[in-house]
Amino acid sequence: MSNSDLQEKALDLHKKHKGKITVKSKIPQSEDETFSLVYTPGVAAASRKIAEDTNSVFDYTIKSNFVAVVSDGTAVLGLGNIGPEAAMPVMEGKALLMSELAGIDAVPLCIKAENADDIIRFVKQCAPTFGAINLEDIAAPRCFEVEDQLQDIGIPVFHDDQHGTAVVVFAALLNACRVLGKKLNNLRVVIVGSGAAGIAVTKLIANAGEANFPQVADIKLVDSKGIVSPSRTDMNSYKLKIAQKINKENKEGDLAFALKGADVVVGLSRPGIITKQMIKSMNPDPIVFAMANPVPEIMPDEAKEVGAAIVATGRSDLPNQINNALGFPGIFRGLLNCRAKRVTTKMKYATAKVLSEYVVSPKADQLLSKIGDREVVKVVADAVSSSYE
Amino acid sequence: MSNSDLQEKALDLHKKHKGKITVKSKIPQSEDETFSLVYTPGVAAASRKIAEDTNSVFDYTIKSNFVAVVSDGTAVLGLGNIGPEAAMPVMEGKALLMSELAGIDAVPLCIKAENADDIIRFVKQCAPTFGAINLEDIAAPRCFEVEDQLQDIGIPVFHDDQHGTAVVVFAALLNACRVLGKKLNNLRVVIVGSGAAGIAVTKLIANAGEANFPQVADIKLVDSKGIVSPSRTDMNSYKLKIAQKINKENKEGDLAFALKGADVVVGLSRPGIITKQMIKSMNPDPIVFAMANPVPEIMPDEAKEVGAAIVATGRSDLPNQINNALGFPGIFRGLLNCRAKRVTTKMKYATAKVLSEYVVSPKADQLLSKIGDREVVKVVADAVSSSYE
Repeated sequence: MSNSDLQEKALDLHKKHKGKITVKSKIPQSEDETFSLVYTPGVAAASRKIAEDTNSVFDYTIKSNFVAVVSDGTAVLGLGNIGPEAAMPVMEGKALLMSELAGIDAVPLCIKAENADDIIRFVKQCAPTFGAINLEDIAAPRCFEVEDQLQDIGIPVFHDDQHGTAVVVFAALLNACRVLGKKLNNLRVVIVGSGAAGIAVTKLIANAGEANFPQVADIKLVDSKGIVSPSRTDMNSYKLKIAQKINKENKEGDLAFALKGADVVVGLSRPGIITKQMIKSMNPDPIVFAMANPVPEIMPDEAKEVGAAIVATGRSDLPNQINNALGFPGIFRGLLNCRAKRVTTKMKYATAKVLSEYVVSPKADQLLSKIGDREVVKVVADAVSSSYE
Repeated sequence: MSNSDLQEKALDLHKKHKGKITVKSKIPQSEDETFSLVYTPGVAAASRKIAEDTNSVFDYTIKSNFVAVVSDGTAVLGLGNIGPEAAMPVMEGKALLMSELAGIDAVPLCIKAENADDIIRFVKQCAPTFGAINLEDIAAPRCFEVEDQLQDIGIPVFHDDQHGTAVVVFAALLNACRVLGKKLNNLRVVIVGSGAAGIAVTKLIANAGEANFPQVADIKLVDSKGIVSPSRTDMNSYKLKIAQKINKENKEGDLAFALKGADVVVGLSRPGIITKQMIKSMNPDPIVFAMANPVPEIMPDEAKEVGAAIVATGRSDLPNQINNALGFPGIFRGLLNCRAKRVTTKMKYATAKVLSEYVVSPKADQLLSKIGDREVVKVVADAVSSSYE
């Protein structure tokens, strides 16, 4: 199916069903006197119980299995700041995947927000209702401040564009090494795009040593202005901080320069910005993850033409998908299962490890398991729960 | 089943199922390539379409059928200000009824709010996601300000404690007149309780003349301090306004005084505050609606002992239930069906009229249809849709 056919089919599907999820009763019809029990007067018993002990809201309501997918619509897919309404199909899609793959009750909450504070306040306000919050498609650097400010609200708040992406990319990189017989500590890695995902992927790979993974030989982060370096004066504080960590020598240069002699390129930026010429300039058998959505930085056939040993994208309709949908259903299942109060760094590395190891024999065109594998969701959920302290 | 048995059974049910609603995919499993269509890359087509025309969010997402039941937990059932967590069972129960009876996708949103502005801002922020908002269990007078300020946000905002209650009480009163052969314009009516429901019921009955219903002979609103009158200095502006309309003569007195010679008493206040003596002092064949939840102002058997011709309560486990659950599923169905931007007064009277007329032969112990009658939901929905201008 061509991409335009697929887009048309997707549009028809959305229109036919008017969206993708539905809310149903989970109380069996056969139970007698249902309305007296689920509504007045019986419901008062549950409300009284929770009024006595707030924490029992996890026992008597949907909260323990309820996740909000919250977005302000400022960075939707590769489409940019298209607003909360236009973000709805994506958030509803995430809710559907959580339900189908992990049995989570998830709903989209696409909101109007002028700034980070508006999002922070909104999430704090609705925290009593949910067991966890999935932040999504919020532009950088706003997303960093939002997530930082929501770490102590009593339920986990997870910005999937950052950490979900980081976890699956790192897992895929581990398996690419297995396929090609390369060692992580020999790799020169270039991350293209310094938005939410780019910065998070860079951090997770750069800090892997702390989690007892081998440390890569070199990692460069490149944005539209070139290599991210501490001497640049056009960067937000989040970029500056990561630049100070990974680029102490203040290396500068454009994307083409950065890719010369690199082993791995991870694109988390814009369609079409990686050229065949750039791939040719990389070390032999380069690993190319071109993950811009919906159109990758370079199409897989082009990258292979010029020698890429492994190519992966974020798309379901191309081989070798690296998509955070491999991670988030299991991650949220695990967070809910252990009633975590926050997401920890340990959970992220544990997830990457099991996502990698779950695939017994990774192949160049199938590094990770496929979206829709319910078994991997359980494995990830267990990894998250058991690494929570 | 005794009340305490029922409460215990309700508690078990809530605990066993961990709440009452669930979120599911509505995309048939058999559709090929589902993940490519509902998520990346196909989902981009729907997002692009909505980015071009915001209004098409109704066509391509759950919005057109999605309702939030929003509460700050400040006036939950008869339990008072027990907080957002303890409000969850009630809001989840309402969501369940909307789903079961009207096919609406509804979710609870129990929120932290210090004041009316916090609720107003929250609802405005999440308006892009929903087709309508059900405000619930928000204390008076906060609830009045909240609803007033949310009338022009593009989707209907309906405070069910006020208007849902008012509509079903008025419908029940119409049918009580049919049963007893009384005429509305001869009735002296006392409303007990000047919270959200009390004020709304008073307004709907007092203004019925404008909607071509007969006007009652007299209506008094009584709160814990006595008859609401313009000369009192202890009242909020909402109470004062209704007092100026219905009590121009500045009548004063306590509940016992107000009930002497009355034909109808509508309790929307606290358990047990209406005595047998008070019922005895009313005109012959009095109509007693004792609607405090979960325990009524006077128990039906007591009221009947002293001559009440008709007694009704809000409870599912007693005969003659008058509960806004008879109204809100159909009202929201109708609002969504016509994509109303707001709730109109005309809709409220139209709903009361069809709720009354739907019962061909009302009886003293069954004034209205039962909760769970799917046919009446359709009738109400049609009345709401067709009265929208």
